[in-house]
Amino acid sequence: MALWYDEEHEGKVRFGLKTTQTLFMGQSPFQRVSVIETEAFGRGLLLDDLWMAVEGHDDWVYHEMLVHPALTTAPRIERVLIIGGGDGGTAREVLRHPQVRHVDMVEIDGMVVDAAKQFLPHGQAAWNDPRLTVRIQDGIEFVANAESESYDVVLVDGSDPVGPAEGLFNAAFFGHCKRILRPGGVLATQSESPRLQRDVHIAMVQVLAEVFGDAHPYYGTVTIYPGGAWSWTYASKADGAGNHTSPLAIDAARAAHVETFSEVYTQEVHRGAFAVPNNLKAHFTRK
Amino acid sequence: MALWYDEEHEGKVRFGLKTTQTLFMGQSPFQRVSVIETEAFGRGLLLDDLWMAVEGHDDWVYHEMLVHPALTTAPRIERVLIIGGGDGGTAREVLRHPQVRHVDMVEIDGMVVDAAKQFLPHGQAAWNDPRLTVRIQDGIEFVANAESESYDVVLVDGSDPVGPAEGLFNAAFFGHCKRILRPGGVLATQSESPRLQRDVHIAMVQVLAEVFGDAHPYYGTVTIYPGGAWSWTYASKADGAGNHTSPLAIDAARAAHVETFSEVYTQEVHRGAFAVPNNLKAHFTRK
Repeated sequence: MALWYDEEHEGKVRFGLKTTQTLFMGQSPFQRVSVIETEAFGRGLLLDDLWMAVEGHDDWVYHEMLVHPALTTAPRIERVLIIGGGDGGTAREVLRHPQVRHVDMVEIDGMVVDAAKQFLPHGQAAWNDPRLTVRIQDGIEFVANAESESYDVVLVDGSDPVGPAEGLFNAAFFGHCKRILRPGGVLATQSESPRLQRDVHIAMVQVLAEVFGDAHPYYGTVTIYPGGAWSWTYASKADGAGNHTSPLAIDAARAAHVETFSEVYTQEVHRGAFAVPNNLKAHFTRK
Repeated sequence: MALWYDEEHEGKVRFGLKTTQTLFMGQSPFQRVSVIETEAFGRGLLLDDLWMAVEGHDDWVYHEMLVHPALTTAPRIERVLIIGGGDGGTAREVLRHPQVRHVDMVEIDGMVVDAAKQFLPHGQAAWNDPRLTVRIQDGIEFVANAESESYDVVLVDGSDPVGPAEGLFNAAFFGHCKRILRPGGVLATQSESPRLQRDVHIAMVQVLAEVFGDAHPYYGTVTIYPGGAWSWTYASKADGAGNHTSPLAIDAARAAHVETFSEVYTQEVHRGAFAVPNNLKAHFTRK
């Protein structure tokens, strides 16, 4: 029997997909992990009953926009760290760049990776790539112990700041991300809905601006996330001369390569995403 | 008692808002007209049970992005025609431009205008502006009979292409819109969800490109519309020298004026909105 599964936001707004079957449901030490087949968007991953990933357009927008603005602008992209990203979509996009030599993906919840490997198409292109090392480990602990200046790019692909991902939103965590980046290195993180999680979004950008000295929110539409409006934020570690990496200084060759396979990303989409709505601009005035 | 009101799309995807009371419900000759109070987004207008407009962010995104790209780029903006737009939000944004001298708003359904005047905050700034003439009349008939080259800008603010708005999506209608525009004049129309109404969106852009010889889709997030992803399309009538008006050649003074009051629109948001997702680009290749 077909059933609606609705994600509610504060009991006032909801987004639902009609589901046809439950493929997996488990309770890990961290959260409830579910894989559900939907009529409209194929297979969907839910963590604690929140839509995380579905097949097709939302997968493309979310993962392409988390990954490619950083990977087309960072000075080097040989060593990449992914925090979270258990469905594999982020690793898949990172590994499409031939310049990438090594990816550490640190996911706290092994059940997510196991469910993704078995049931989700998202990451299948990534799991067997020899450049990828999957570490089932707390990302906060990992960055605290990682060697300084050991990564070119850090991508934070966590869920909402409640539950296991809570510690991925504060200055201590971002401070370690900065420490382990090489000079000029780039961090990109999902940064919540500018529509329904506006205060959390603003706070995240402000924390990143404080920690890195430079932070650039960017925007797109992800239907399955709260309000359909989504954001990511780009921050860079100043290089030896004190200069930050610009999110708009796109390496044309890398971007042209991405445009050969991307569904959503283009150089114009990349640049356009960094336009900040007028009523948010005042919150992000650069110092 | 609080009740959810869900708009379903093809029985597979739904978007719901918790409602607290129904302020108005009527059946006009054209459609069911409802005004409902929602917990999250204030008062909402529904036509035939589809969310049309709510207060706040969705109002701002939808109306600012329908109006200001056209009104900051058209060579002249003295005479503006709005087809539909019964809630008043489009007229409000148009009338914020001091260069606008006369606005004809042609709404087929008087019940929508009456309900909006009585219950919706959207258009209150517009209704008493002496530059606005509201005509309760079929927009298709209006454009068919209007004088050639009599408007600088035409804005099409209709609902979905079923029911009374069906005729606002075809070449005959757009042909008349072009005829009544002055050379260099600009048309902007809502053009459906690129996510859940992708085929209709593509067909609309293609029809506009055929009729006008030049059409530019642009994109944004409107939470209450199908999939949260929305589009508008910009087309211009060639001037005497055969040149089209560029949607990216923004009049800086007009845009700066808009930025003094807009919630969403900025010149960067305007430019960024015209970036076309990679998987749609192939459908819109210019001839």
